[in-house]
Amino acid sequence: MERNQTYIVPGFAASGIAAGIKADGRPDLALIRSDVPAVAAGVFTTNRFPAAPVQIDRERVARGTARAILANSGNANAATGPDGLKDALATSRELALRLAIPEHEVLVASTGVIGHRLPLDKILAGLPGLVADLSPGGIPAAEEAILTTDRFPKLAVARARCGGRDVAVCGLAKGAGMIEPHMATMLAFILTDAVVPRDDLDRLFRRAVRSTFNAISVDGCESTNDTALILANGVAANRPITAGGADGRRFGAMLTEVMGHLARAMVEDGEGATKRVDLCVSGARNRAEARRIAYAVARSNLVKTAFYGGDPNWGRIIAAAGSVGIALTADRVALHFEDVLMFADGKGRAPDPERISAIMSRPVVHIRLDLGMGRASFIVQTSDLTHDYVALNAHYHT
Amino acid sequence: MERNQTYIVPGFAASGIAAGIKADGRPDLALIRSDVPAVAAGVFTTNRFPAAPVQIDRERVARGTARAILANSGNANAATGPDGLKDALATSRELALRLAIPEHEVLVASTGVIGHRLPLDKILAGLPGLVADLSPGGIPAAEEAILTTDRFPKLAVARARCGGRDVAVCGLAKGAGMIEPHMATMLAFILTDAVVPRDDLDRLFRRAVRSTFNAISVDGCESTNDTALILANGVAANRPITAGGADGRRFGAMLTEVMGHLARAMVEDGEGATKRVDLCVSGARNRAEARRIAYAVARSNLVKTAFYGGDPNWGRIIAAAGSVGIALTADRVALHFEDVLMFADGKGRAPDPERISAIMSRPVVHIRLDLGMGRASFIVQTSDLTHDYVALNAHYHT
Repeated sequence: MERNQTYIVPGFAASGIAAGIKADGRPDLALIRSDVPAVAAGVFTTNRFPAAPVQIDRERVARGTARAILANSGNANAATGPDGLKDALATSRELALRLAIPEHEVLVASTGVIGHRLPLDKILAGLPGLVADLSPGGIPAAEEAILTTDRFPKLAVARARCGGRDVAVCGLAKGAGMIEPHMATMLAFILTDAVVPRDDLDRLFRRAVRSTFNAISVDGCESTNDTALILANGVAANRPITAGGADGRRFGAMLTEVMGHLARAMVEDGEGATKRVDLCVSGARNRAEARRIAYAVARSNLVKTAFYGGDPNWGRIIAAAGSVGIALTADRVALHFEDVLMFADGKGRAPDPERISAIMSRPVVHIRLDLGMGRASFIVQTSDLTHDYVALNAHYHT
Repeated sequence: MERNQTYIVPGFAASGIAAGIKADGRPDLALIRSDVPAVAAGVFTTNRFPAAPVQIDRERVARGTARAILANSGNANAATGPDGLKDALATSRELALRLAIPEHEVLVASTGVIGHRLPLDKILAGLPGLVADLSPGGIPAAEEAILTTDRFPKLAVARARCGGRDVAVCGLAKGAGMIEPHMATMLAFILTDAVVPRDDLDRLFRRAVRSTFNAISVDGCESTNDTALILANGVAANRPITAGGADGRRFGAMLTEVMGHLARAMVEDGEGATKRVDLCVSGARNRAEARRIAYAVARSNLVKTAFYGGDPNWGRIIAAAGSVGIALTADRVALHFEDVLMFADGKGRAPDPERISAIMSRPVVHIRLDLGMGRASFIVQTSDLTHDYVALNAHYHT
């Protein structure tokens, strides 16, 4: 039970079971419960066709507290119209009764196929067992139950002294395809026992999202279901953490550590990915421009296939950077693959083929594109585009 | 010689040879010459790293007339700095001497690998033979010499009565990868014997580009070399064609026919493509919004892999349409695959599986996404994303 000890957060219990939503019998229904009402914050997809659970959570998170998260995989409950909303509400109502908590303190999340009604009977039939299985060591079981095409679970934990007490931050996530800014088809649940006032939690969480879940790209597609939630149940009884102070900085660093770990894991587990590319665009006039150029490169299919082939094709990176309509001075731009200069003074260099070949064969490659215009930068994590990505997505059933 | 007769435009001669730029010995150097100075217009890549030939042509086209186009495949002469510019100028100077025309009347175009100097000696050594081979029936030979990963040549011709005379419009093009708005890595040369004043030619040409070369997407990447040129040599001696009148409409329709044919051929020959998807976004408030949504769907890797797999995954189309930040009312959106309704009233329909399966197996699939908000529309042509795309681009050498 060493593993379970690792992912324990005081005051939280979790469980995961196979309710029969997935045809193959893998776990597909997860529950997280806080012993006491927890301060809640959330970030959701900006897609104009948000799934039913996203519509519900948006309203409920705005109330400021939550007690439980009920999540299923195997069915996204998206593009299901008013029926989908009714189905999601029926599951949260039944769970609220069983946990004896107000219904609005239940958050819901779904991931899987779009356009099919939730198998309501299976979920309702699964709830008694799911509640009975709740335990402090149940977080890894809950994690298993939210995975879809993921090849490995994504869990992370950080512990530190904060506000005079030891506090824990633990995260569980799923992702794989459709990973992009606005956190496409990802679910991430962050649990902490710290005392954090609602507005501070919201600020600290959003700030951490910007450099983690909103700084990754697998295939440039945005889901209807993306949800990142944080629950802070205050069981640690620390001095309240404010966003501005030293405690806030320490707590923010914990969030970034946990969420950054989950974000990198999502890219490494990107559908079909064999490689992670850590792309830093620096020397921009402002962060927004750095971000736009970073994403243009990170999303380029030509760049992504080149990394798959182990081809140090700097020309495709330059072409992608030049395509977004931001004025660049070619002579000032410098491109490094790790510490090797590939492009400068408007033309390509001739680096040592053996060194470059060694760099391209690494599982993580660091690319730095300096624009030579200013001091702003943005780092994005992206994956390569492979045969397996095509195979997975050409034959995923609707 | 029947084929050559087809692609003859009075007053133009062309040729294509193998000058040794491509390692495999295929033709790689093309020449088009007008017997008299021709009115010229051009549309070029908006990439911030334009290749050397693009920089040269922009200036020369602005002068209003041209006599010759010298194009090579196998080397893009992009990201080559001042040396690249010098190399391109050296080829045009030598050609101008051989043709006894002013140097500024020579246009140049290159396509192929980025970041390598042009093999100047090979091109200069090839020029005497290239000039000697010029003939009115040489357009197909010139076409062969500009292809790179293309699987088939792209030629189109239209003839009609215009301004009181029979005029011809003939186009030759290359494309394959990097095909996107702003015409990425495509070259297209349109030749006509019509008399068209410079400003009218420019207007009519740009208008035709918008619904043809700028309404296609293969992989969302934009090249450093895209060039579309039109030369009108006036040999037909028709009444001058003005953009506004009935002749202008007829001539514009000829341009759209020829350029539309070339654009569709580029998508069908998109790298690894097995299918063309004709996607019409209608019911938008304005054309710009229709275009943004059309491109979001056309560029979605999830949508493109689904078409490859023959999977009628309407959920991915809806999700892509919802991701661009344009407010949509889900209830008003309707999605058809050919004449079959897939999504309406905010949820998916259950169409006949056999009919859908028959539609998905066609080489061209028509998709219509109606937003239910207004009367503007945009049609984009896109291809599927396949194993062959990945294979081609992972292992294309730099």
